[in-house]
Amino acid sequence: MKRRVLLIICDGLGDRPAEELGGRTPLQAATKENLDWFAARGACGLTDLISPGIRPGSDTAHLALFGYDPYEVYTGRGPFEAAGVGMQMKAGDVAFRCNFGTVDGEGKVLDRRAGRIKEGTREIARDLDGAVIEGVDVRFKEGTEHRAALLLRGEGLDPRVSDGDPHDLGAPLKAVKALAPEAERTAQIVNEFTRHAQEVLAQHPVNLDREKRGLPVANAILVRGAGRFPDVPLVAERWGVRFAAIAGVALIKGICRAVGMEVLEVEGATGGLDTDMKAKVAAAMSALDRYDVVVVNIKAADIAAHDHQAGLKAEVLGRIDDSLAALRKGFQEDWIFGLTGDHSTPCETGDHSADPVPFLVYGGGVRRDRVTTFDELSAAEGGLGRIRGVNVLPILLDLANRSGKFGA
Amino acid sequence: MKRRVLLIICDGLGDRPAEELGGRTPLQAATKENLDWFAARGACGLTDLISPGIRPGSDTAHLALFGYDPYEVYTGRGPFEAAGVGMQMKAGDVAFRCNFGTVDGEGKVLDRRAGRIKEGTREIARDLDGAVIEGVDVRFKEGTEHRAALLLRGEGLDPRVSDGDPHDLGAPLKAVKALAPEAERTAQIVNEFTRHAQEVLAQHPVNLDREKRGLPVANAILVRGAGRFPDVPLVAERWGVRFAAIAGVALIKGICRAVGMEVLEVEGATGGLDTDMKAKVAAAMSALDRYDVVVVNIKAADIAAHDHQAGLKAEVLGRIDDSLAALRKGFQEDWIFGLTGDHSTPCETGDHSADPVPFLVYGGGVRRDRVTTFDELSAAEGGLGRIRGVNVLPILLDLANRSGKFGA
Repeated sequence: MKRRVLLIICDGLGDRPAEELGGRTPLQAATKENLDWFAARGACGLTDLISPGIRPGSDTAHLALFGYDPYEVYTGRGPFEAAGVGMQMKAGDVAFRCNFGTVDGEGKVLDRRAGRIKEGTREIARDLDGAVIEGVDVRFKEGTEHRAALLLRGEGLDPRVSDGDPHDLGAPLKAVKALAPEAERTAQIVNEFTRHAQEVLAQHPVNLDREKRGLPVANAILVRGAGRFPDVPLVAERWGVRFAAIAGVALIKGICRAVGMEVLEVEGATGGLDTDMKAKVAAAMSALDRYDVVVVNIKAADIAAHDHQAGLKAEVLGRIDDSLAALRKGFQEDWIFGLTGDHSTPCETGDHSADPVPFLVYGGGVRRDRVTTFDELSAAEGGLGRIRGVNVLPILLDLANRSGKFGA
Repeated sequence: MKRRVLLIICDGLGDRPAEELGGRTPLQAATKENLDWFAARGACGLTDLISPGIRPGSDTAHLALFGYDPYEVYTGRGPFEAAGVGMQMKAGDVAFRCNFGTVDGEGKVLDRRAGRIKEGTREIARDLDGAVIEGVDVRFKEGTEHRAALLLRGEGLDPRVSDGDPHDLGAPLKAVKALAPEAERTAQIVNEFTRHAQEVLAQHPVNLDREKRGLPVANAILVRGAGRFPDVPLVAERWGVRFAAIAGVALIKGICRAVGMEVLEVEGATGGLDTDMKAKVAAAMSALDRYDVVVVNIKAADIAAHDHQAGLKAEVLGRIDDSLAALRKGFQEDWIFGLTGDHSTPCETGDHSADPVPFLVYGGGVRRDRVTTFDELSAAEGGLGRIRGVNVLPILLDLANRSGKFGA
């Protein structure tokens, strides 16, 4: 029997013992009847998203979870942000994450986010989009709030250039520098673009209006995270199955699109603490009628952890657990369910850590182990042992009886 | 003390929970007093033959168990089949698996096995062997029943060519095509050989006789699985010890020969369900007087699994267990005993899966863990953790105190 796969990625799932929770991790402290139910009837293990001790980014971890070796395909975050804001990319494109920022008369950065500008960015982006510099097409598109993406398309581009964003307040906007001789031209083009952008922005109606209202103007583009759009085989070609993804966060959507997944829009999926998890799970279950693999990213627990709020993270994990009741109830016999995270985010540090992330698999064909509760410590005793992020999708596809054989 | 190593590879050992066995795996359901005895006094773990989630072939898995990275050395099955039928190969040779087949007047395949022809194939093969085409030596040798192998030896050969075997009945025999520019000449030579073979076969006395008896004639050679004979250091050179192997199946014998093991013939070792396991174990024990490492492949459990027969597989595993009574009784203090499989073959699917395979090690120097029974779930809790196929031989040789040091 060929099975269909549901993979839920709880962003920032893993943690460390939290004082506030009496030395328990948020996952240990959470109310999680459904997660425990699946764990007790499936198999658990620990996942090192990249490699033991290596702190994953959300982008590199998701690439690994989708079966790509991030050391091979990842050059920088730019391309995934660009894909996330809906830019159509192709292999060889070089892209940057951008902020709208505020600089003073001497080019010193006063605000890296132009007062978290929300309105008017579409109008500004439209006026920056479509330039041709030295024969290279320049695309520019706004993202949420102060965020945007810059894409270069043409011959001989190279992503090995430094950031224009100085990252510190009061420091001057930097000229982008080539970090390899082959990247000289790319650096020149980016610098030409940011110079041109400052001219356009200085007189832009949106800024004139902001000035009138006493708001910081968006008079500079801060670029960072240059990367080349990876020339990778798309998931559908590589594995011979149809993939869909559900995510609230633009970056995650971008990664899913970049590797060829269909991104499904779900009402109420915000990528925030207020996201409608039940709607996401319901949409994923229904999408399994049309797709062989459905991936869901739920960001909320990570947000609580970045804010150092262990109690809130445990509560969010409890809400994720709640949303799995419907899955447990409606589970089809030809489904394989996997759940893990893209990294640990200890509330202690408020940032990603390399602590391995618990992983559970449930469904027909799974060897049921002795683990009866789902948390970082129990999962370590499970039948799946300790695996890498890049193993997760192959393991699920093998359990779904959809893998090709290597050899005969 | 330098120890000697016995490695038993139970083909298709691992499985998934089987309904027919009340949700147990065949290994969990088997009577296995001796396997449990060794497990209770040794250490257990799980092996991913290639990598977690990657479905192994028998060929790639055995290469891994013999210490080779199959991604480096494996190009196709042909060379191992050729070695299996007893052809002497050398690095750079390109070889194919072949079938004797039956085609109609238009070259359409009527029977991919020429009525499972048994008699006369040696005579036919002799008449096809020894041609020289474009300066390349062409060797041809019959295997069991309708099987044969084709070997090309000469300069500039390349295995990147398509199959001539259309794999489907009623489809026309295909011309072999180059899949890379460097392989054009190889493709031409193979096509010239198959054309020449059809001429020889049309008038061959064996076929004239079959025609008279109303049997399908062997009037075409179907080639597939092109591969280059790997230019690898032989096991004896690589590890500095003497290796012997015992196997019933031609492919496994071929792999063992190809990597430089002495293949010992054991009466009653058929590679089938009727194989004499006790004779194989006895022969292996006695060979440990002359060799440092003896490898035994027992195919039977895999055959039961390919037939979806979980009960039969449990019974076969019980017979393997029986055959280990003599090993337990006659165990020498300077022996290290390892037992694992080359892949899981779930009776559910009847084909190889990537589910990891239990592995046990017993003997002096082994750290005894808490596992007391040998199966997929118990082994997951063992002291060896989750390892790769390519780690198995180095681990055994290290326990035998026969490894070189990396560094000083």
